[in-house]
Formats: sequence, structure tokens, C-alpha cells
Amino acid sequence: MTVWLVGAGPGDPGLITAKGLDLVRSCDALVYDVLVSRELVAEVPRDALVIPREDVKQAELNAMLVELGQLGLEVVRLKGGDPFIFGRGSEEAEALLAAGVPFEVVPGVSALSAVPASAGIPVTHRGVSAQVTLVSGHSASGEELEFAQLAATPGTLVVFMGLAHLDELARGLIAAGRPASTPAAVVCRGTLPDGRSVTGELHEIAQLAEGLSSPSLLVVGDVVRVGARLAQPLATVAAP
Amino acid sequence: MTVWLVGAGPGDPGLITAKGLDLVRSCDALVYDVLVSRELVAEVPRDALVIPREDVKQAELNAMLVELGQLGLEVVRLKGGDPFIFGRGSEEAEALLAAGVPFEVVPGVSALSAVPASAGIPVTHRGVSAQVTLVSGHSASGEELEFAQLAATPGTLVVFMGLAHLDELARGLIAAGRPASTPAAVVCRGTLPDGRSVTGELHEIAQLAEGLSSPSLLVVGDVVRVGARLAQPLATVAAP
Repeated sequence: MTVWLVGAGPGDPGLITAKGLDLVRSCDALVYDVLVSRELVAEVPRDALVIPREDVKQAELNAMLVELGQLGLEVVRLKGGDPFIFGRGSEEAEALLAAGVPFEVVPGVSALSAVPASAGIPVTHRGVSAQVTLVSGHSASGEELEFAQLAATPGTLVVFMGLAHLDELARGLIAAGRPASTPAAVVCRGTLPDGRSVTGELHEIAQLAEGLSSPSLLVVGDVVRVGARLAQPLATVAAP
Repeated sequence: MTVWLVGAGPGDPGLITAKGLDLVRSCDALVYDVLVSRELVAEVPRDALVIPREDVKQAELNAMLVELGQLGLEVVRLKGGDPFIFGRGSEEAEALLAAGVPFEVVPGVSALSAVPASAGIPVTHRGVSAQVTLVSGHSASGEELEFAQLAATPGTLVVFMGLAHLDELARGLIAAGRPASTPAAVVCRGTLPDGRSVTGELHEIAQLAEGLSSPSLLVVGDVVRVGARLAQPLATVAAP
């Protein structure tokens, strides 16, 4: 009886870890996020309990994981990306800990680098960027992002789930001093066959990204120019 | 003929991606970093050319990858962590691009989240940290880190390869205004069976980490306190 908090990776089902895939293939119960690839969900044993997480609040989900664990099942909680990077995996871990249900974290490939890479963009590059800052666009509403601090940050800025707030993000950074001409990219469904990206300057990126859908990620910084050189051969990473 | 720039993950051989493992198992030639797990290197086909990267300068390595690709081989360049996060993978990509050798990037699990997670520490946690900043400790000498800016950064600070400069890093952050009592952790060989970590306050972390070896990673921020709660059951993630 263990609840495994497993990262499914950024989208491409081949980017789950070997250990994560083994766990999916041998679990008694799978609780998966709707963004997780259907190919991975299809890897569960025939008699496994399969539960999509849709319209379920975090507290209810935590309670469900505790109950499944207490039934003595091997439970895989399959989450997009990495469980401990904006994945609320640590809240699930705390709930399991509080209930005395054993759990383990199996890290996953985060969108942080994999999604920009799918558009040719390295988040670090010698002589261009030696620092990466990651925030969530959800923070753009409600708990305010510290734009003055973010605008002054050297290196590469990556914003998860920023699509809905792209205009606010770009305006906020520019108002706080980041040049309007800073290179920026939005990568939509990165690592998936239908992935798309747009590249431009910060002041125009919200306009350029019109029509793109979630999940999308925003990259701001000079590494986007390196990506413009490397993007062609990368396109979408095909299965080997 | 393709050169695959593959992330091996943070240490535990089970944390390579399914796609990466397939490529290692079918390649003609493997060029691997010395920190990559021997178990992964042992997965190559019996007749594959296996080349450790040791005492080879980056320019020579780039030339080697180009030559192997031009021989028409399927080449796996296996790198610790993720190829595009402080991995110089994008330099290898540029060399391959310049030579007209096809290449693909296969992302890997970065130490960024996986190594803190191995000590129970989530780099983001609701109400505690909604921002992650990543720098390399190598930058502490030579090209200077911007301590004033780093000290003012909210959320979690992660420093790769910081062990040699731990004292400078801690002093620099404190001198620039980060409270001496800020929680900090050093995680050594995270995700591996002999992984170790120490936790304390920023002012004492260099002393606490004496005796730890590379590769080590420094985490600074209140998430370290969350880790103190979650660390016990996590310990070292065992193979499933």
C-alpha cells in the first residue's frame, strides 16, 4: 500500500520516466489529471481502477487518495509535468502524511525546459542566460506578481499557465522596466505532435499568441533568439 | 543518422525517460557524462561504441559528436539532468546544426525539483512559494552573481553546483539582505541510494554541509520547512 505521486512529463507520453511507466503498468488504481496523455492512461493493467480528476476540488482529491491508500491499493497519482513544480503534489503528500498513508514521489520532466526545447529554446545558454526564473501566470490575478522584481531579473523568465494573462504579464513587465523589444515566445502544447509556437517581442507577444490554446507557456529573454536558430531542426520531437 | 541529446535525469537510473531509455538501448554510439549512472550505460547494445566524456573540452566534444553523426551512426549523447538546463546541450546542438548533422533533444528530469524532492522539499508550495529561481554556483566565481537581485527574489532559490562556493553564496545573500535565519538545505547525490542532505539556517549551511561531496544542490527558502515535515517518508525513493 503506497500512493505514488508520479510526474507524467510535459505531454509526449514517451517523456514519462521509466520508473513512472513501470508503476502505471503495475498499479491497482490510477488517478490522473485530464491533461495527461491518454496513451499513458491506457498502459494500466486491465483490472485497475481508473479515475480521471475532473471537477474535483483539491481537498476532495486528497481525501480520495487517502481512502484508496487505506484500502491497501498500490495507487498511482499521475500528474502533468513534475509533481513538485506548481503541481500541488506537496499538498497531496501532506494529506497522505497526516493520514499515515505511505507515499513516494517519482519526479517527472517539467514543462519548464522541455516545452521551450520543443521550440528550439534552451532556458540557459552560455553567454546568454545563466539564470532561470519560474512563476505561474495564475499569480497574475489574485496574489500579485512582483513585476518590479521580475522585470529586473537577469536571464530567462518562464511563466506557466500564462496564456489567459498574457497581456497583463507583458504590460506589467514593460511598465516595470523590461524593454518592449525583449524577445518572447509562447509555446502551446509543446512536445505534442500538434504543438505550436510564436516568437516576437514582448510588446507584441499577446497579440501574436491570439488563437493559441492552453496549456501554453511564456518564455521571456534572449534565449528566444538562440531558439530562432535551433528551432528548425527541432520542430516537434518525433518518437524514436 | 541522428545525434540524440538525451537527458539521463538526476541520478537514479529509473528516472531517465522511456524514450531516452529506448534510444540508449538501440543506439550505435553512446557518449556519456561521467556522472551518468553506470546502469544506464550498461543498457547499450553489445556492439555499440561507448565513449565516456572525461577530460574532453567542449569544443572537442562538439567535434566528436559531429564526426560520429557524419559516420551515419545513431548517436546518443547522454547528459546528466536535462540537456538544456545548465547542460551546454544547446552548444552541442549549435555545433551539429552548423555541420548539417540532424539532431533531436530528448528532455530529462532536471535536478531542479527532483533532488530537493528526494529530501522531501517541494520547490513550490501553495502559500509558501510561487516562484523558483535557478542559478549555477559556478557563476559565483568569474562572472559574478547579482546578489542584490538574488537576495530580493521571493520564493525558492536553487543553486546547482554550489558546494565549492557555499560559504560565498550564503555570505553574499546575507550581505545583500537575505535574513541569516532563512531556511536552507544542501542535498548531495539526491535520488541515489547514498543520497544525503543537511538542513539549517542560511548562516550555518556551509558549515553543516562540510563533508558532503558533489554533485550537491543548495535550496534556500521557506519550502525547506515544508521539506522538514515531508522528509521522513520520502528518504530515498526506492525502485518500485
